[in-house]
Amino acid sequence: MRDDEIIERVASRVLRSLEPRAHTGSHEEFARLTREAGRADDASCMWCRGRGECHRRRPVTTRRILDAGACRVSARYPAGAVENELAPCIDHTLLRPEATYEQVARLCGEASQHQFASVCLNPVHVAAAAEMLAGSGVAVCTVVGFPLGATTTEVKVTETRQAIDNGASEIDMVIHVGALKSGDFASVRDDIERVADACGREALLKVIIEAALLTDEEKVQACAIAKMAAADFVKTSTGFGPGGATIADVALMRRTVGEALGVKAAGGIRDRETAERMIQAGADRIGASASIQILRESGPGTP
Amino acid sequence: MRDDEIIERVASRVLRSLEPRAHTGSHEEFARLTREAGRADDASCMWCRGRGECHRRRPVTTRRILDAGACRVSARYPAGAVENELAPCIDHTLLRPEATYEQVARLCGEASQHQFASVCLNPVHVAAAAEMLAGSGVAVCTVVGFPLGATTTEVKVTETRQAIDNGASEIDMVIHVGALKSGDFASVRDDIERVADACGREALLKVIIEAALLTDEEKVQACAIAKMAAADFVKTSTGFGPGGATIADVALMRRTVGEALGVKAAGGIRDRETAERMIQAGADRIGASASIQILRESGPGTP
Repeated sequence: MRDDEIIERVASRVLRSLEPRAHTGSHEEFARLTREAGRADDASCMWCRGRGECHRRRPVTTRRILDAGACRVSARYPAGAVENELAPCIDHTLLRPEATYEQVARLCGEASQHQFASVCLNPVHVAAAAEMLAGSGVAVCTVVGFPLGATTTEVKVTETRQAIDNGASEIDMVIHVGALKSGDFASVRDDIERVADACGREALLKVIIEAALLTDEEKVQACAIAKMAAADFVKTSTGFGPGGATIADVALMRRTVGEALGVKAAGGIRDRETAERMIQAGADRIGASASIQILRESGPGTP
Repeated sequence: MRDDEIIERVASRVLRSLEPRAHTGSHEEFARLTREAGRADDASCMWCRGRGECHRRRPVTTRRILDAGACRVSARYPAGAVENELAPCIDHTLLRPEATYEQVARLCGEASQHQFASVCLNPVHVAAAAEMLAGSGVAVCTVVGFPLGATTTEVKVTETRQAIDNGASEIDMVIHVGALKSGDFASVRDDIERVADACGREALLKVIIEAALLTDEEKVQACAIAKMAAADFVKTSTGFGPGGATIADVALMRRTVGEALGVKAAGGIRDRETAERMIQAGADRIGASASIQILRESGPGTP
């Protein structure tokens, strides 16, 4: 396949420039390096905080496993049905700088009611959201180096540690886009790796590549580097850039990272049809501020 | 005057809510508090790093002094003419996240050639810009909590200290807009005050109020708080919000802060006419990426 060849070629070139001696030029090599980094293998457990709730919290992945031929999926008692709802795939998002304390409280209430995967909020609101959502099963996700990705690594690390201390368990960081555009892959990797280290096993790390600013080749480069740097997810967009998630980008990103990482589609997803098309293209998490609207619209299996 | 009455009333209300005992309700009170903070009085010296070059580095202010009736302005030898150019009022700006190292180097070269007040860059580029501009007389300005203003105070302080260590001498921080909208003036003030403390006497502090997100009343509140918190400048916009600088906002901000603080107009200023109208309205610094274009256009006194 032509596309896969391109992905393989670009990813190999990135890897070669970063790890000249260890390189064997294959995707398996990426997988090995990622495993060695010791985080991605545990990502599935982190998603439900070790509660064996994949069928409920990762319905997209679970359905993919079933579609692939599995006839049983183990789950912790009481298991219940595999969710057919979008809610567990949605990061209920409010990143507008002018968001008031009242709007943040409302967002948390909605997330708890509908059991979204998380609330995604600016760092100033993390402590309050963590308090409001304690025991609700909804994670607190926040953003780091957002939305330009142009703060220093040290500041991104400080921001990450503080967010985790304040109760965040998911971190959406933006890459250093300018370094990528300058061909300085080592800086892009080091930046992600140090934030991944700061997340440790306490938080999921989603790496925002801001796809609308990148060529297809750069999108593959960014995703390959994020995978190598032991991120848990790649994410399409900040929602503040010149464009949001596209089906083509999600598909390209999924093909680049394989099944080891999650793909989050964000930016401009305002209806159920778009959300479902993103999932079909390979997304397993959706970032949206129109989450309630998305849930309200009837799904394909609903009359 | 109706407008001034409104400004006085709103500013007094903000002050009262923050300092209930010390308040006398007047603008003089703000001036006293600002002086006590021990920074704003020295701002004029910081602007030219104690070199007595106001006539060259602060031509707008110098011309205002002359217009007000002064027949002599003291200056360090060799004084030369009061600059009639816009360059010393312009922060030559490149904040796009995708800016490459090469584009940053070009920006610094242009700033040095045209003697702009500063280059305004994202934090990742500060160290390189400081090295390139050493001895050029052009300051390095960077942004903090940018562009959403929704990072925590601790992160803004860390960002500020690191930027100064890396060679920045001007800091453009964004206020916590959500706190302002929630009526939490104390958080807005503490946020600015702690960044002002981090700047100390090593860096000028410009406070971005992101005017396009605010009502007129909130603009006055934000400026009054910035003045109270010992900022050196208030600045209209990030350039990433829903709107840039307007003449009306610059005039309102100038009336609110009086003459003690600078006013920086930024966002969407792409030609000389607009830049000069901003200065007439009360701005003494212009943030622009189209700076070269602005200089190229002939000024009012040029054929």
